[in-house]
Amino acid sequence: MDPSQVKIPPMKDMTVDNITENVHLINSQCADPRLKYVLERLVTHLHDFARETRLSTKEWMAGLQFLTEVGQICTDVRQEFILLSDILGLSILVDSIDHPKPAGSTEGTVLGPFHTHEAEELPHGDSMSHDPNGEPLLVVCTLKDTAGNPISDVKIDIWETDSTGHYDVQYPDHEGPDGRCIMRSDAEGIFWFNAITPVPYPIPHDGPVGKLLKRLHRHPYRPSHMHFMFEKEGYDHLITALYLRNDPYETSDAVFGVKDSLVVEIGKADARIAAKYGVKEGHALLTYDFVLVSDEQTSALRDQNSRDALDKLGRKVKIVNGLPIPDLD
Amino acid sequence: MDPSQVKIPPMKDMTVDNITENVHLINSQCADPRLKYVLERLVTHLHDFARETRLSTKEWMAGLQFLTEVGQICTDVRQEFILLSDILGLSILVDSIDHPKPAGSTEGTVLGPFHTHEAEELPHGDSMSHDPNGEPLLVVCTLKDTAGNPISDVKIDIWETDSTGHYDVQYPDHEGPDGRCIMRSDAEGIFWFNAITPVPYPIPHDGPVGKLLKRLHRHPYRPSHMHFMFEKEGYDHLITALYLRNDPYETSDAVFGVKDSLVVEIGKADARIAAKYGVKEGHALLTYDFVLVSDEQTSALRDQNSRDALDKLGRKVKIVNGLPIPDLD
Repeated sequence: MDPSQVKIPPMKDMTVDNITENVHLINSQCADPRLKYVLERLVTHLHDFARETRLSTKEWMAGLQFLTEVGQICTDVRQEFILLSDILGLSILVDSIDHPKPAGSTEGTVLGPFHTHEAEELPHGDSMSHDPNGEPLLVVCTLKDTAGNPISDVKIDIWETDSTGHYDVQYPDHEGPDGRCIMRSDAEGIFWFNAITPVPYPIPHDGPVGKLLKRLHRHPYRPSHMHFMFEKEGYDHLITALYLRNDPYETSDAVFGVKDSLVVEIGKADARIAAKYGVKEGHALLTYDFVLVSDEQTSALRDQNSRDALDKLGRKVKIVNGLPIPDLD
Repeated sequence: MDPSQVKIPPMKDMTVDNITENVHLINSQCADPRLKYVLERLVTHLHDFARETRLSTKEWMAGLQFLTEVGQICTDVRQEFILLSDILGLSILVDSIDHPKPAGSTEGTVLGPFHTHEAEELPHGDSMSHDPNGEPLLVVCTLKDTAGNPISDVKIDIWETDSTGHYDVQYPDHEGPDGRCIMRSDAEGIFWFNAITPVPYPIPHDGPVGKLLKRLHRHPYRPSHMHFMFEKEGYDHLITALYLRNDPYETSDAVFGVKDSLVVEIGKADARIAAKYGVKEGHALLTYDFVLVSDEQTSALRDQNSRDALDKLGRKVKIVNGLPIPDLD
């Protein structure tokens, strides 16, 4: 576009008080109402942050330098900005907003940076972990809708670390997937497999995010957990995880992923379970009943939550394509 | 530090409403009260931004991807995060907060990414630009304190583009400085030199920041200006610029640098000036009287502004090392 052709409303004389208004004015030509709204809120909060902290030039420069380092350490297999979002609680917040859960359904949690598309589909009962040092664990789950009906043929992505707390992709020489698989629920909504008992591990903390954690006197650990991701047309994509009760980091997860409803206790297989699933009596056992929400339910709940939240803030909005924009009519 | 040794207050069960409180709780062990305060405000605004926009996972990912690109295009000679801060009005805001100006003193403005440490000190009257296509301009300035006394021996950094709107460092094969110099004010606070009339030019817009400007229907242009930076012990470092009246981009500067008090008109040398400074009568002339503020005045005004601003927000703070932190006593 020829810049001189752009019709821009003239700014007012710039002061510390009207700079925000001036930026909004200059951004007001944006043709996408959603982008305009997001930028309007972003600029307002960014400026208020600077005003409330009386941010110094030195701090501002340190902040920009930090963000530059975060960007520069990113590679195809390391996303430090996601990590930064995780440790600031933004990731879990966005997931909660975008994937609201009605009572009785399974809550979501952070995806984390270690999901891959390498996992192979395994038959029920197979073993997803080949780490001989892991503590064997039988996992038996059900999958239902909010009305209690089993959901069959859901694609379920499952991943966990090995017994040292590392995902397969963290080994430079890894060949093919380990500690991850894809399952499909059967006609009764059941899926089951053999894994190892999850262990706590630190998020990557040799970069700028790790340095920040250290300055905040925070540890980089995540409590023991196993990741699950559920996909089936008509159902809201569910990214979640199960956390082990009494993990040393249960109440201080570096990325704020733990929710009470996702904390489980490892049990022991009784005689019936042992016989049914081919393990010895007393074998470590994890069971969980997952509940998926339909796309329609999710969409209705998301819209309602948006309206309620913005109403509470006194903002008149309309929902377009599932996202709020100011209602100027 | 051994993570398990860190005493962390336990989080509450995570919900969309208490996530902010939980992040503050986990960050509360930070030993640096200023960092703790800055993070507390940062996290609050970041979360409120997500809540007020009902940020979707897709938008969140697009934002992180954008920031990653901003980081990855940065080099020793290109700082795209400063550019991003500039076009969001943050740079000018931080400068205004950190370098407040009492009435009658010269206002500051954005530094921009093209200041270098290559410039050579020139004697008064010398020419800082060697572009034969530039329109010659005589620049005669005075430098005083807020009481009207001349300030001698101030180090003055001056830089501008050539007649095509490019700084010397933007040419890959540039050898040594051009369009920039260092002057020192004389006993009467005067400094003068020959330059060329500034022209408008676009900020670098071939990267992610340029893409954002385009999506916002904004042009990347800065109005014609000449940069000045003043340094002398005992005086607040002044980074400023003079802008030409009636420039096509005067009221829509891409980086919000223009302030009314910094807009000037190019005049013409009269017979006295022409004789005194060795130019022809009618030669293009720029004059300006700069006024520097002492460190003490600046510091007192900054503290007072901080107190007033935070008082207005109902926050009880104390000023430590010139910066506010919550007053918990």
